[in-house]
Amino acid sequence: MNTSGGLTITIATEGDVAQILTFIKALAEYERLADSVVATEEGLRATLFGPRPYAECVIARWNGEPAGFALFFHNYSTFLGRPGLYLEDLFVKPELRGKGVGRSLLSYLANIALERNCGRLEWSVLDWNASAIGFYRSLGAEPLEEWTIFRLKGEALSRLAGH
Amino acid sequence: MNTSGGLTITIATEGDVAQILTFIKALAEYERLADSVVATEEGLRATLFGPRPYAECVIARWNGEPAGFALFFHNYSTFLGRPGLYLEDLFVKPELRGKGVGRSLLSYLANIALERNCGRLEWSVLDWNASAIGFYRSLGAEPLEEWTIFRLKGEALSRLAGH
Repeated sequence: MNTSGGLTITIATEGDVAQILTFIKALAEYERLADSVVATEEGLRATLFGPRPYAECVIARWNGEPAGFALFFHNYSTFLGRPGLYLEDLFVKPELRGKGVGRSLLSYLANIALERNCGRLEWSVLDWNASAIGFYRSLGAEPLEEWTIFRLKGEALSRLAGH
Repeated sequence: MNTSGGLTITIATEGDVAQILTFIKALAEYERLADSVVATEEGLRATLFGPRPYAECVIARWNGEPAGFALFFHNYSTFLGRPGLYLEDLFVKPELRGKGVGRSLLSYLANIALERNCGRLEWSVLDWNASAIGFYRSLGAEPLEEWTIFRLKGEALSRLAGH
């Protein structure tokens, strides 16, 4: 747990699943991708808190009220021969922004990254999100402009698998 | 194990560490990033085959000779509420290209993705690598043009952690 003023950050547990889904939906709304969310409490419970957790989650509270969350997992750098930490989602409720909640969540993850001997903390940002980009640059983060992510899913994925 | 003609694909074990490092260095050379490789056999052994493996690796052999490799880990989609498979490295020796080794490695990973109920197979590609991009598009993969990866490392990472 990490406390600063009215802010508390804790590792999420199974009892937080409903809150996590609420945050995921609010983030999707902000990213103008609300239609893309098909996650369910059941799915989150199975994949985050089951026998093989695929990601980890921390929750920030402001004066006890859920304020935001960060969800992350380990990626890997073959060039370093070490794991990294990849931040998949970072969200702070609009009405609780400007209090340092987002920065505290990132700082919390930076500590986890160093504790676990990770070489890097990475994440992706939508190109139009200028305020987020300015914030990330102010932390010293650098954009990997020359890389593009490719995604294979659905029928194309099944076809490649030979199914 | 997966065999097709002279091609064999197997899950890498600790005994393959030296070969994996050779592939990593050859890939870095191809990406014009050879100076960035600081990985060691010891580091790979600890992080890939230790008590907490951070990534998995498969090796392709052509008529018994090491031909290429793929290294991958699980990422996570909060919108799907499911894990995905992220391909960090894919490499085939230049003299063994054109035999379907790269496609077979990707197909092998697509099978693992489906077996583990992953919603997506993703990877990143350098913008100048037109032949790779053409190949990925031919598989039905789509570029996520609107996203940029940010990276925090070194002193900036320590500063954010408050160290």
